[in-house]
Amino acid sequence: MDTGEDIATFLSTLLVVLREEAVLATPQEKPVVVFKQPDLLQKELNLTLDETCTEEELLLICRKVARYSVKTSHPYFLNQLYAGVDKYGLAGALFSEALNTNQYTYEVAPAFSLCEMEVIRKSLKLVGFTQGDGIFSPGGSLSNMYGIVLARYQKCPNVKKSGIAGMKPFVVFTSKDAHYSFTKGAHWLGIGTDNVKAIEADFNGRMIPEKIEEAIKMAIKEDKVPIMVNATAGTTVLGAFDKFNDIADICKKYGIWMHVDACWGGSLLFSKDYRYKLNGIERADSISWNPHKMLGAPLQCSMFLVKHTNLLKECNMAGATYLFQQDKMYDVKYDSGDKSLQCGRKVDAFKFWSMWKIRGSDQLSHMVDNAINCAKYFLEEIKKRHNFILLLEEFDTSNVCFWYIPERLIGLEKTKTWWDEVNQIAPNLKKKFVEESCLMIGYQPLAHRNLKNFFRLVVTCHPVRTKAHMDNIIQMFERHGKNL
Amino acid sequence: MDTGEDIATFLSTLLVVLREEAVLATPQEKPVVVFKQPDLLQKELNLTLDETCTEEELLLICRKVARYSVKTSHPYFLNQLYAGVDKYGLAGALFSEALNTNQYTYEVAPAFSLCEMEVIRKSLKLVGFTQGDGIFSPGGSLSNMYGIVLARYQKCPNVKKSGIAGMKPFVVFTSKDAHYSFTKGAHWLGIGTDNVKAIEADFNGRMIPEKIEEAIKMAIKEDKVPIMVNATAGTTVLGAFDKFNDIADICKKYGIWMHVDACWGGSLLFSKDYRYKLNGIERADSISWNPHKMLGAPLQCSMFLVKHTNLLKECNMAGATYLFQQDKMYDVKYDSGDKSLQCGRKVDAFKFWSMWKIRGSDQLSHMVDNAINCAKYFLEEIKKRHNFILLLEEFDTSNVCFWYIPERLIGLEKTKTWWDEVNQIAPNLKKKFVEESCLMIGYQPLAHRNLKNFFRLVVTCHPVRTKAHMDNIIQMFERHGKNL
Repeated sequence: MDTGEDIATFLSTLLVVLREEAVLATPQEKPVVVFKQPDLLQKELNLTLDETCTEEELLLICRKVARYSVKTSHPYFLNQLYAGVDKYGLAGALFSEALNTNQYTYEVAPAFSLCEMEVIRKSLKLVGFTQGDGIFSPGGSLSNMYGIVLARYQKCPNVKKSGIAGMKPFVVFTSKDAHYSFTKGAHWLGIGTDNVKAIEADFNGRMIPEKIEEAIKMAIKEDKVPIMVNATAGTTVLGAFDKFNDIADICKKYGIWMHVDACWGGSLLFSKDYRYKLNGIERADSISWNPHKMLGAPLQCSMFLVKHTNLLKECNMAGATYLFQQDKMYDVKYDSGDKSLQCGRKVDAFKFWSMWKIRGSDQLSHMVDNAINCAKYFLEEIKKRHNFILLLEEFDTSNVCFWYIPERLIGLEKTKTWWDEVNQIAPNLKKKFVEESCLMIGYQPLAHRNLKNFFRLVVTCHPVRTKAHMDNIIQMFERHGKNL
Repeated sequence: MDTGEDIATFLSTLLVVLREEAVLATPQEKPVVVFKQPDLLQKELNLTLDETCTEEELLLICRKVARYSVKTSHPYFLNQLYAGVDKYGLAGALFSEALNTNQYTYEVAPAFSLCEMEVIRKSLKLVGFTQGDGIFSPGGSLSNMYGIVLARYQKCPNVKKSGIAGMKPFVVFTSKDAHYSFTKGAHWLGIGTDNVKAIEADFNGRMIPEKIEEAIKMAIKEDKVPIMVNATAGTTVLGAFDKFNDIADICKKYGIWMHVDACWGGSLLFSKDYRYKLNGIERADSISWNPHKMLGAPLQCSMFLVKHTNLLKECNMAGATYLFQQDKMYDVKYDSGDKSLQCGRKVDAFKFWSMWKIRGSDQLSHMVDNAINCAKYFLEEIKKRHNFILLLEEFDTSNVCFWYIPERLIGLEKTKTWWDEVNQIAPNLKKKFVEESCLMIGYQPLAHRNLKNFFRLVVTCHPVRTKAHMDNIIQMFERHGKNL
């Protein structure tokens, strides 16, 4: 049997590898990625489980895994809605991994149960809910599904026992720009993707309230049962914030559950300068929020918050007697597991608790504001340059969407052929950035607006970015793109 | 901005705390738990997020969190279907936490994507599937839900688009002894808990095949649509294995999807001595298996495996264009994300890959066999003692279920009053064990058999147990229970 000494020694060796391979905090002069095609990487890594290896060989493979992994802690990783980890968050993760337990009962997770309760208490307060409940879930898609399931249960509790067959169809309303988890969720939950009504958004990506109301009326006319309007705080591509107060008014008028998918934008709850964008969120019935996105809590760290105190338990409980015995030696209200869809549930609260405890809301506020301000600076700078076309001149979160136009296409008429050329630029430029190991930034189309292949720069709290980083990114575009 | 040096230093300090607090491998003479009631623990830990703290204070709180957390790596933690972590699994977890990325695309997780593919390839082979697919999911409940969703989709692909409303009710068949995730899953998926038919099990906890067939016929008669039979490999309480070949015959006869919930017992796939108990599992359509249970992969580590090659993708895909662009610089078949319900998906494959790579199937086999043999030894030993009553004289996995009878109740008639007394023993004795910090072992009722409060001892691979540990546990029962 390994001793604690043995294990600590091995983990320390790994820490050295992680430090040497610049994983923990990647300096900007190091590669953000060393790209290899899958078949070549496969050969390089020797991942086959048909042969075993020694501890030394394992360390060598780990070193290569680190080398060929994308460095999300690199300042020029701006590819997704997450990036590097918070130092204290990572510390919390190491701690809960080592203590390897499940979050379902106080019996097996006394300290972590109290941590989760405290994070949820404080988060409810931050939202502006005067009461409520919450649970950590394995990601935003699941958190959003918690919202749909609760909305449905509140409207029709019988669905738990009897199922949907034979009932009228349930309908969910969300933005055309909303995350695809509502579609996947509607499939899984037996609602059907046809019953997710995609509401038109305005030019800035905010759902048009009148269109929601029209859609609700239409659903009622079709003898369907509207159960939820989902408003988004920070849409995936444009970063737009829906108009929460307007949506809350509509939900109130029709007696419909209001959910806010704040997986991305929820971290603005901490912001001094931008908190106002979330005004009205406190009128929602439920909220999803992923501290693993902007704040840099280690993946996975997602929270579902609900305003109604007993509903989460009532809706989800199954009362498994092998786990939730009622004759325990402590007050069983500390057993959170029966509120959850999951049985075994990873400890995700502690890493976020660690960050929050040491940094406090003030420091988290500065970090969020800095991320958004860096994005704002980037936007203002590219506005000045004729090679950049902005999709939106303003934005709500820290997403900046734009096309890069090489010199040869400047000043020409924007015909279909011209756009066809422009739409090749993003994948080609991205390929160059990746091959040069200098920058990772995403691009995508937006089909319902008939837009193709524009870049989306996303700034998060970790690693801490500066204006200098933003300037450098612009230079990279010019250097690799101008003559493309 | 923190340097890699800073972060590594802080993590090293935490490793010292983890070692000093005997978290990484807890010697048997250390407490398995230092129990405090929730209100007292709350005071002790100072978890409030209303005040911040310094790095030193954070380390002090972490130390206390370690001290008051249950030591799952203690040889006398036999409370759940998981326990301590595998050293190499923990190393893999630290590594993937530090590299903080999502499993959805090769673009952001090149090495981890290949790892996941390799683990799934090798697992399919281990099961005996000659083709197939798979995905890591955040726990067994979700993995089982993948099974139900695929079964439903195969029977009625239209459910994805149209939902269940207006359709005939779908029905799922599973053992009375099955895990509660089928009930919770049926609620979420819109099937309804009433449409989970709980099939009677025999004395040893194995579903009675004739009863399944009766239930299927009944469902068809009621104009419902049978979609899945779930067989369990290792039931939660008794550890029973259903009769896979008999169930496969029935599923074939009626054209019904066969799923095997092997979350607990799936690790017997590695076993030399007990692999035969899984005979017939290769006839299933899909399987759930949690290496975080018996094998000691860090939580969460759960796999869903399916025999049909393209179904997982076809069923779950939403084709989000911001993530799964088709004009990437590599073959996009390496992007696994659209097979998943989740969008962001934690890297869970690498920790299991690390364990498997270094230990090889042979060493994992020895570890599984040792766990089961220790449980067998325990069973044989308590059989010899009149203070123990066994629920089953044989078992399939490493669950041993029994009552402990104090001396004063020996030889008396087993009346209702006698059983009422016995049913108090487990909670009282457990309380003593916990207060003495010496042993954590679960107890539970089994309502559908009208049984109350018997102990369930569970042996897992980590920490490695010996016959001496088993002897000591028996002595603890005698010491604390004989005169209760």
